[in-house]
This record gives sequence, C-alpha cells and structure tokens, in this order.
Amino acid sequence: MHEATVGELSEGEILDRILAVLAGSSRAVVGPGDDAAVLAAPGGRVVVTTDTLVHGPDFRLAWSGGRDLGFKAAAVNLADVAAMGARPTALFVALAMPDDTRIGFVEELAAGLREACDALAPGCAVEGGDLTVSETLTIAVTAIGVLDGVAPVLRSGARPGDVVAVAGELGLAARGLAVLFDRFRDAAGEPVAVDDGILSADDRRALRAQLRPAPPVTLGVAAADAGAHALMDVSDGLALDARRMAEASGVTIDLDVAALGDDPALALDGGEDHALLAAFPGRSLPDGFRAIGRVTARAAAPVTVAGAPYERAGGWDPYRDWDHRTG
Amino acid sequence: MHEATVGELSEGEILDRILAVLAGSSRAVVGPGDDAAVLAAPGGRVVVTTDTLVHGPDFRLAWSGGRDLGFKAAAVNLADVAAMGARPTALFVALAMPDDTRIGFVEELAAGLREACDALAPGCAVEGGDLTVSETLTIAVTAIGVLDGVAPVLRSGARPGDVVAVAGELGLAARGLAVLFDRFRDAAGEPVAVDDGILSADDRRALRAQLRPAPPVTLGVAAADAGAHALMDVSDGLALDARRMAEASGVTIDLDVAALGDDPALALDGGEDHALLAAFPGRSLPDGFRAIGRVTARAAAPVTVAGAPYERAGGWDPYRDWDHRTG
Repeated sequence: MHEATVGELSEGEILDRILAVLAGSSRAVVGPGDDAAVLAAPGGRVVVTTDTLVHGPDFRLAWSGGRDLGFKAAAVNLADVAAMGARPTALFVALAMPDDTRIGFVEELAAGLREACDALAPGCAVEGGDLTVSETLTIAVTAIGVLDGVAPVLRSGARPGDVVAVAGELGLAARGLAVLFDRFRDAAGEPVAVDDGILSADDRRALRAQLRPAPPVTLGVAAADAGAHALMDVSDGLALDARRMAEASGVTIDLDVAALGDDPALALDGGEDHALLAAFPGRSLPDGFRAIGRVTARAAAPVTVAGAPYERAGGWDPYRDWDHRTG
Repeated sequence: MHEATVGELSEGEILDRILAVLAGSSRAVVGPGDDAAVLAAPGGRVVVTTDTLVHGPDFRLAWSGGRDLGFKAAAVNLADVAAMGARPTALFVALAMPDDTRIGFVEELAAGLREACDALAPGCAVEGGDLTVSETLTIAVTAIGVLDGVAPVLRSGARPGDVVAVAGELGLAARGLAVLFDRFRDAAGEPVAVDDGILSADDRRALRAQLRPAPPVTLGVAAADAGAHALMDVSDGLALDARRMAEASGVTIDLDVAALGDDPALALDGGEDHALLAAFPGRSLPDGFRAIGRVTARAAAPVTVAGAPYERAGGWDPYRDWDHRTG
C-alpha cells in the first residue's frame, strides 16, 4: 500500500496527524492551536533552551527511525533544562522536512517526542511547533522548564572542597556510535540498517544510549534540592564539560580515574551521554549521583585526573567535524 | 581580503562573534552561556511560539541579506507573541548553516535579530540559541513573552456585535513578493540581486514589507488593554486568517470592501504582512487599529465581504506550494 508523503498532504492535514498522536498530553493554559501557547510559570521564572538535530551531522536515517529521533530530540533538550535544576514543562518543535517524507515517519517522530516526555519528564508535553518544507530534515526543539521557586543552579558555582558527582552514563553513547560506525556501514562507508541481533548485550545497550538517550532528567531538581553548588549537562564528554564548569567557577576539578569505569578514556572524551555533572557541598549525595572527584582551588590546569593535567580537546564541533555525509 | 567561513572557525569562535553583536542586550535573569537561559515571568505565565525560515521555500539569498533575514525571523515570531496580547521578552535562535557561510553573514543576521527587537519590541533580546551545520540554511526562532498579569487574548473570543479591526499592513508584503518575482529574476526564473533604485517609492515600500516586515508588535498589549475579545496574527492573508478566527469563535466575520484599500483582492489573499486582526466590543478602537468589518452570528460562510461569502482558499502551503528552487 502506498503511504502518503507530506508533499501529498496539506500542512493542516499533517498537523492533524501529529496532534492525534499528541492528543491528551497538553498541560498548558493554552496548548497548540492559537498563535502561541500559554504556559504556567509558578515562581515567576522560566528556563528556556534550544537544540537542533540535522540530518547528516546529527543522525543517519539508516540508523535512526522516527521514534528514536523524536525521543532523542526531546531528551537532549530535557537534559539541558534539568541541568539548571529545573523541571521541564513544555517542548516546542520546529520541524522542517523534505516533501517526500512519509507521514508515518512524522507520526513516529511525534510518538517519540511524547514517549521521551512521559519516560524522562512526566508532566512535560509538546505544546506547540512549526511545520515547514526543506531539502534537509531538521528537528529544532525548544524546551521550557520551571524552577518551582528555587534558584537556578549554574555551572559557575563550584567551590573548593565540593564533591564532584555525576548521574547517568559516561562514554556509553560514544561506544554506541563506534558500534554504528564499525558494524553498520558498507564498504563505501555508507550507513546500513542496524541488525542488533548480531550484537552483544553490552553493545545493544550502548547502541540504545546513542540512538535513544535517557538522561536522568528528574535528578536535576533532586540536585538543586540537595543544595548543589553547580550543575551542568555532559554533552561533549566529561573532560571538556568539566573544564567548562571549572573555568566558569574559577576552580580546578580533579577526577578519580578509578571512578570512571572500565574505559576511563571513553568516559572522559565520549560525548552525547547527557549525564548530569554536579558539585555538591558535602559527601552526602542525592540518590542517583556518584562521586567522581573533587573541586580544588584553581591549579595549573582546569581539569586534572588523579592530580595530572588532562588537556585533550575532545568534543564534537559541527563545523570542523562533519564530513558532509548524510546516509 | 578573504572573509572566513564558518567551516574555518570553531563553534566557539562563531558564538563569540555572535555574542559580540548581541552584547549588552540581554535582560534575562541568566542570559546566554549556561545550559539554558532563565527568564522572568511576572504574573506566573509565559507565552511561547516558534516559526522557522528555510532557504528555498522561505527566502532567496539573492534577495535577502543577513540583516533582513535576521530582522524577518525575529519579526514573524514577535508578531505571534503580540497576537496573544503579550509583551515579547526573549528570542531563542537555532541556526543551522552550511559550512561555507561567511562569518560576516552570520554577524549581519545577529544584527538583524537585534534590530528587530529594538525597533519592534523594546526590552526583548536574543537570550540563547544553538549552532549547527546543515546543507540548508535554516533559522528556527522561538519567542517568549509575558502577559503582565492580564489574560491571553485568543482567536476564539469574537462575539456577534464586535467591531473587526486591523493594525498594520494588508497585502503590502505580497505586493513586495510580486515585485521580486516580476522584476528580479533572470530569463531562467532564477533570482537576481535587487536594485531598488529602479523601483517606484511604492514598490520600494512593498519590497521592504516583504523582506523586512515591521508588524505592530506593541499594539498586541494595547489591544488586550482595550479589552479585545479576540486577537490573531494575519500571516496567511486576511481572508484565510479571518476565517480561522470566525471558525474558532463560531461566528461570521463580515468585511467592508471599502476598508481594504486600493486592491481589496491583494488585501484579502496576500500573506506575510503579520498585521494584527482583532475583535473589539465597542467602536472605540485603540490607536493604530482601524475598523474593517463586524462580527455577526454564524451565517452560511465564516467570512463574507459586503455580505457575500468569500471562499477563496488563499494562504501559502509549504508542502503544496514550494517549487524546490533555492536561489
């Protein structure tokens, strides 16, 4: 049976299909359908962040289905809201897509957005968006959160003596990306469909962390409630993001190599985990966080591992690192 | 002199150039630089909307420079916030661009965003965003506004007896688009650079309305303060947007042809003006609004002109109407 493409439907028909998937999820004062949504902002402040997934640099359609993509687009934004110590309340999704995109793919994408909200940030929902046509499939998500009257937890508040802790995975998403590049490309380097039946359980878990990351979103509020001095999302690898926290705070962060798991190099340099990195004033950490180091007065390097400066650049730079492949 | 492209710079260097253009404009509790921004939301509610400009369907680089594009990307979103009766406070800009984009273009785009805020919505600023690489230049803007304690004005509140009024232009942006298509394309239909010295003053004004629209953003709050029953942005032409208001409100809107200017058909069907359409309970309109019709009980058609049903479809459908040209 022929499945309709978005080019065969009108914008209104596509929107109706998306709204059917999202039905019943809105918690807004005014949800989708007017010029803008109206959201409650208890405490009189809101947290706002935006992050985009672009076909090519950010995903390959041979590897990611619509549901995974929707889930990931939500998750990476929810993690940034959590990283302020806030509770996510709404997503806004600007979707630009080629006119040969299958409508079923769009519905799956909407379902993935909804699933991520339900699984990672209960009470959060897609409350608006925009549909347009583009040669390049692009999913730009803006996430809104509320602070419930507490102060935001910035990356600049770490103080000497604090315990450095993380919640979530370190290096697992990067391992998943390596599995994709190593196992699911053809001789010409083009991505081929994933058959995860041939993978070990560990590789399957890593693949899932890459394609459908599940950051510990609710632990952002837990960290704020526990009095975290500093908090941020680990999106570009622990070493680079710890350096950002150390530089913003004017301190050094010393990491325990023994706390970084079986593959410390991967934990330090692998991106896309969206773990939460925090500096706590005491040794009593909220459930879900584990100690990985300590904050000291600023030494020669912003980040040290077992006392030795750690200087690798790490991270993914979209302009430097994309090879123009799409797949 | 060679001008750097974004592909020759790092993400951090590009961001520094953008932040230099935006310097001093932030009004946020926490502005750009952390995982998310924190905005004041007096009254405990916020208004949120998102709208995207994509190279090809939404603009041609032969016709629009970076400054015009930034201005337009801001303006169309500010108008949607105004259309809820709210005051815009912040823009978030997800910018996906080819790696051969000149850095000067990016700086002009940032300057255009800032200019639009200063000109149309004083106190509003770019408070965050996201940079990524894409084959297709894409500018996804999310705008946030506050209601200052008043209720949002929806499109569904028009009541029989209300005066229908607009603030802003009707049909001028469409006339500007016609000038571009008629005068600034080559024999093959490809866009060529605009030389507005050859145009009449009226055509120049129309061109400016298309490339750099200046909707009456501050009149959204004025309409709310004046007790407007319904309010919306006219983005797809008066006839189609009046139909949306009439259908949401369960009424008929009857328009006066004499109030629609020299070219009523263009006023009815031409899109992209981002005028404000309102239904007011009395004949005393706030400054900047002019009466163009009245609300009646629901008749056979949702929109009538001088009492006769007006049924043209109008509007721009990105999936139906884009011809895949980019320029």
